[in-house]
Amino acid sequence: MREFKRLTPYKEALEMMLNDIEEVKEVEELPLDKALGRVLGEDVTSPIDLPPFNRSAVDGYALRAEDTFQAREYAPIELEVIDEITAGMESEKEVTNGRAIRLMTGNKMPNGANAVIMQEYVKREENKIYVLRPVAPGENVAFKGEDVKKGEVILKKGQILRPQDLSMLKALGFKTVKVKRKPKVGIIVTGDELIEELNEKALESGKILDSNSAMLKGLVRDYFSEPVFYGVIPDDEELIRATLERAKCECDLVLITGGSAFGEKDYAHKFVKLLFHGCTNKPGRPIGYGEKVFVMSGYPSAVFAQFHLYVKYALAKLAGANYKPIKIKATLMGKVPSSLGRHEFVKVYYEDGKAYPIRKKGSGIISALVESNGYIEVPENSEGYKEGVEVWVTLY
Amino acid sequence: MREFKRLTPYKEALEMMLNDIEEVKEVEELPLDKALGRVLGEDVTSPIDLPPFNRSAVDGYALRAEDTFQAREYAPIELEVIDEITAGMESEKEVTNGRAIRLMTGNKMPNGANAVIMQEYVKREENKIYVLRPVAPGENVAFKGEDVKKGEVILKKGQILRPQDLSMLKALGFKTVKVKRKPKVGIIVTGDELIEELNEKALESGKILDSNSAMLKGLVRDYFSEPVFYGVIPDDEELIRATLERAKCECDLVLITGGSAFGEKDYAHKFVKLLFHGCTNKPGRPIGYGEKVFVMSGYPSAVFAQFHLYVKYALAKLAGANYKPIKIKATLMGKVPSSLGRHEFVKVYYEDGKAYPIRKKGSGIISALVESNGYIEVPENSEGYKEGVEVWVTLY
Repeated sequence: MREFKRLTPYKEALEMMLNDIEEVKEVEELPLDKALGRVLGEDVTSPIDLPPFNRSAVDGYALRAEDTFQAREYAPIELEVIDEITAGMESEKEVTNGRAIRLMTGNKMPNGANAVIMQEYVKREENKIYVLRPVAPGENVAFKGEDVKKGEVILKKGQILRPQDLSMLKALGFKTVKVKRKPKVGIIVTGDELIEELNEKALESGKILDSNSAMLKGLVRDYFSEPVFYGVIPDDEELIRATLERAKCECDLVLITGGSAFGEKDYAHKFVKLLFHGCTNKPGRPIGYGEKVFVMSGYPSAVFAQFHLYVKYALAKLAGANYKPIKIKATLMGKVPSSLGRHEFVKVYYEDGKAYPIRKKGSGIISALVESNGYIEVPENSEGYKEGVEVWVTLY
Repeated sequence: MREFKRLTPYKEALEMMLNDIEEVKEVEELPLDKALGRVLGEDVTSPIDLPPFNRSAVDGYALRAEDTFQAREYAPIELEVIDEITAGMESEKEVTNGRAIRLMTGNKMPNGANAVIMQEYVKREENKIYVLRPVAPGENVAFKGEDVKKGEVILKKGQILRPQDLSMLKALGFKTVKVKRKPKVGIIVTGDELIEELNEKALESGKILDSNSAMLKGLVRDYFSEPVFYGVIPDDEELIRATLERAKCECDLVLITGGSAFGEKDYAHKFVKLLFHGCTNKPGRPIGYGEKVFVMSGYPSAVFAQFHLYVKYALAKLAGANYKPIKIKATLMGKVPSSLGRHEFVKVYYEDGKAYPIRKKGSGIISALVESNGYIEVPENSEGYKEGVEVWVTLY
């Protein structure tokens, strides 16, 4: 029985793999409505100023600021209201000294006016107002281009489009947006022990139900990509080889689970020229990568860790996404022992600044995945963390 | 010009609103493949034990632990290998004293064996092994039901289904899952000033492009629900009334933006019996709610705040989702002043434990939404936070 001669350090393996992955080239043009969560395929520059004109930031009266400098509660200044503007309209009149125009939040500033006084600070009597306090030039005016300037880059290539990004695109008049094609990710699950339908007899004789396919399909969807499932394949050398070939042709990346170690029936790694095979991460040590194929473990918990330690970064790079996991500071609520030389992936439940390690052991334990909502990483040079220390959690 | 007589405190308004919202009753049965991100409609109990049998947690040899108690590197114990099991198979032979069966990770434990020794700790010579160290009874065995017990509740009603939850369901033999029907959320955008296509002339005369529809559609999708867009409606009392009636009939909740204040053309609130109208939150003070309708501001930044302060909680309750925003501890990297009596929604950019306040002011500023990735809340009884203090950030 062969074993790994040398484990590649996690960070070294990650870098080798990322250097090998190339961003998907194609972009597709989608209506804004279909673009949520997609990856922007090019920088977007604004075709207009936003606001497109100087506008009032409040409901009130546009006037000349210098008319109000002497205004006080006990000595109001009288101005004549020469026009009233409603939403989306503009006034053709010009504001000159001694005059004001009634307007609403968002209305275009009338010519001649250089400030707006809020309606709360005037008394209105028919076509007169009495201004009760001074306003400065520019007060309560939102200036043309103060939100976005014409020609400014407003969203960068690689942005994962959120509701507010779509709002910005819409505000600038875009109806469509160019996004990266979603990477296609082939998923092959292997193992003679796997069945796909509940069958008590089969379970009693030593079979188990496949669960990796459902997990990987979901994870791939969560990370900018489209899963293509090639089924549960028995440990048949030729069948695995053929399925792998097909998946490599049809997909941008392939994930094959089971058979990543050196058992007699662990075929997957025989058909791929691997850049590395066997790394310091724990669980999931027997991971291999080469030729756009990840050779992964069979156990769900190991597969899950391998996905978060390696595959999600590969998907982000493939998809061209400007992605970096968000790190959260938390107080560790239990001891986390770790072995020197291993990069450990430790599942935690995070809530309100506290990280509770999920103690269930065994890479076959799916309930630990369900109970956790994030993980901490313990690098090779650490023997773990004591209870009460600050750690960085990544949520999943 | 009427103003709000009294502002309802934010938390009071939130509670009133949530008390009025009722969970969607209907569930639908979906294949696991379609259930990612959906809300579980009922508790799920496991039909089987997981693992379904005692199994080996390592590659090695199943044996009787007591045979190994005296084993040492310098004094190995010889055992006879009576069978070899491959993936998904079981042995019909029984392990008795002096005998062992070769097996792989995941194999069912043969009868008679009570422990497994890892292959690294034996020397194999033909049909003999030499055990180099002792193992304890139960060592390297994953026991039947240690992950999940038959009859145990494995996922609770309201769970927002993640990849690992789907993996669990699949591992227990489920092919479909009952999820809540997605709430339908009507979106009505009002305002004479709004145009839907870029038109330089219209912009020059005081119009602006609608952006709330794109934002709200995206937000609604992000929070378990399905948007139904009723278009951009001019400030026409009858048209607004009719559209609102239709949306109330067709949807579980309605969001209407624009016209939530008391301008002459702010009609929306006239047609809804509001539980509250005008709250202490800032921005977005003129929010109103009643009869499953949110009467919201017109300005994107105010609408965005109102969504995160109110609407997302309404959607979670409607959808029956077990949802609570995750709070992240961060060091505040700038001063955040706030007015007493106002519950402020302050946009921040969070990275690596630090929260940078986004200083752009004005509720019309969309770029501040694009630049931020979360918010902090400053309650009514606080005058704000100094630079350097710890705050709780919620990411969006």
